[in-house]
Amino acid sequence: MTEQSPDPLLNPNRAPTLAGVERAAAKVAALLPQTPLLPLEIDGRTVWCKAECLQPVGAFKIRGAWHRLTDLSARQAAEGVVGVSSGNHAQGVAWAAKRLGIRATIVMPGNAPAMKLAATRKLGAEVVLYDRATESRDAVAAKLLAERGGTLVHAYGDPWVIEGQGSAGIEAKAQMRARGIAGPDKVVACCGGGGLSAGLALALPDAEIVAVEPEGWDDVTRSLAAGEILSVEDMTYPTECDALQTPETWPINFAVLQARGVRGVAVTRSEVRDAMRLVFERLHLVVEPGGAAALAAVLAGKVSLTDATLVTLSGGNVDPLKFAEIITE
Amino acid sequence: MTEQSPDPLLNPNRAPTLAGVERAAAKVAALLPQTPLLPLEIDGRTVWCKAECLQPVGAFKIRGAWHRLTDLSARQAAEGVVGVSSGNHAQGVAWAAKRLGIRATIVMPGNAPAMKLAATRKLGAEVVLYDRATESRDAVAAKLLAERGGTLVHAYGDPWVIEGQGSAGIEAKAQMRARGIAGPDKVVACCGGGGLSAGLALALPDAEIVAVEPEGWDDVTRSLAAGEILSVEDMTYPTECDALQTPETWPINFAVLQARGVRGVAVTRSEVRDAMRLVFERLHLVVEPGGAAALAAVLAGKVSLTDATLVTLSGGNVDPLKFAEIITE
Repeated sequence: MTEQSPDPLLNPNRAPTLAGVERAAAKVAALLPQTPLLPLEIDGRTVWCKAECLQPVGAFKIRGAWHRLTDLSARQAAEGVVGVSSGNHAQGVAWAAKRLGIRATIVMPGNAPAMKLAATRKLGAEVVLYDRATESRDAVAAKLLAERGGTLVHAYGDPWVIEGQGSAGIEAKAQMRARGIAGPDKVVACCGGGGLSAGLALALPDAEIVAVEPEGWDDVTRSLAAGEILSVEDMTYPTECDALQTPETWPINFAVLQARGVRGVAVTRSEVRDAMRLVFERLHLVVEPGGAAALAAVLAGKVSLTDATLVTLSGGNVDPLKFAEIITE
Repeated sequence: MTEQSPDPLLNPNRAPTLAGVERAAAKVAALLPQTPLLPLEIDGRTVWCKAECLQPVGAFKIRGAWHRLTDLSARQAAEGVVGVSSGNHAQGVAWAAKRLGIRATIVMPGNAPAMKLAATRKLGAEVVLYDRATESRDAVAAKLLAERGGTLVHAYGDPWVIEGQGSAGIEAKAQMRARGIAGPDKVVACCGGGGLSAGLALALPDAEIVAVEPEGWDDVTRSLAAGEILSVEDMTYPTECDALQTPETWPINFAVLQARGVRGVAVTRSEVRDAMRLVFERLHLVVEPGGAAALAAVLAGKVSLTDATLVTLSGGNVDPLKFAEIITE
């Protein structure tokens, strides 16, 4: 139990803010170099790709985890943290916890990619597995917290995590300015629970934000269209975008996305694969399916381009057999 | 023919200099963002990897080509340039020529990777093929220059090209300093003809330089040991490092390497493949075999590490079938 709340699954009762994003960006800038903002020509226009797959844990998740863990009180830090993640947030929390000397326990689905499980354990975290089809990961986390104490670091439903992810937008804006471009005026983001999308929406208040989800897991897209939070209907719907397999967004994320008029878009398996191949050939980067979803929407013509469109390449943790299959398809 | 020399295969009669490297670095900095300097933990030590595979043409070659072509006189520019390359320098010259509105003809081996041939043509260059086993590429280039005029832009035996490649060292030094590290004190570079190695040797006069070549194509290694330029003995020796398949270094490169006491190291096919897999998994980058040679030497224990060792990941242009085969081996 933390001193902040009698129920550790209740998020701290504050909304994420632009000021929080800027504070997170300063902390991240002191810790890590900027990830590259790489130009990619598509039909004569330049798309600006933020290569978050080059972060130390291979995904943007290190941003939110660092912002969250560095804001723990000494007592909270001593009690440790519990994360819930399909693999990238897991590594982000484990990386930050290791660096800060904090004990980390991560709740992960048993069918997470082998390399994500191995990498999380290698960073010193304890991994507790659950069954994605039959168990609620939040319930598993609640049980752990009740037994052991500690602070929940949710993968997206947390104001620090949202603010931390938004730091990628602050960086991208500075990188565009360094190249003489005013922007970004449009942001296309890979979206699971909406942590990154909400963070970017806060970071870039003048930009149009598009949240891209995989087919079958487009609950945020449907929720934004309906004006209320809807869940994924078929939790067994097959997708390769394991990083974006979230059953539903949380009110803290939804409030930001809705206030900013964000819209969602869904992409197919083959659109994601096309994007991964293009990134391999033209940018020489390894992106995982969930990290290629935003670019997939652009390539498929589902999102129109401006002269200053930012696209997130949000993660690169993919098993070699899967990657090999996709680039040689 | 250029106004500089009656014989276009005679290099301009000057030695490359540190001042030239610094001038090249300023030109490159005005054109392109820095490539990331990524930390990689190996046996508890950090190796600093310069991700040149993220350059627009997927290799460091853009540096030397840009420095060379921007120093052409107006008359030289009007006559066009002739490049000689297995694929990466080809794209560097074609990219720079396109940007400057200069006509480019590139002499390439017929068995160059398909993606390198296609990318060079896509950049607007005319490609003239030769047979690597039976023809001298320099002779093919000399014939073209005699027929058409223009300026030779050699892949490594050119003071501008050497200085341009050295700009990667100026960048890496600044990037290390930004992280509070004094260095690099050791540089491990992928080596074909010695353009990059010589450039880095000039750029970083206090660092120890190690040039890494593929087994069978280790003419620079043998030349440095012998104190005279020796050629590759078996031009049919199989290697996957197409980017490093150069028959012999040129005096302009050898003079720099020898004066700095550079030593060479040869790596095997399996050592190169191990390095490519590690980079895929840990850094989420696509490096080609020739771009992984330097890291391969480190991983194989053939080069000892300091606290500020720089390793070049010099290129990422690899056919998908080849890459898939290697990461799933």
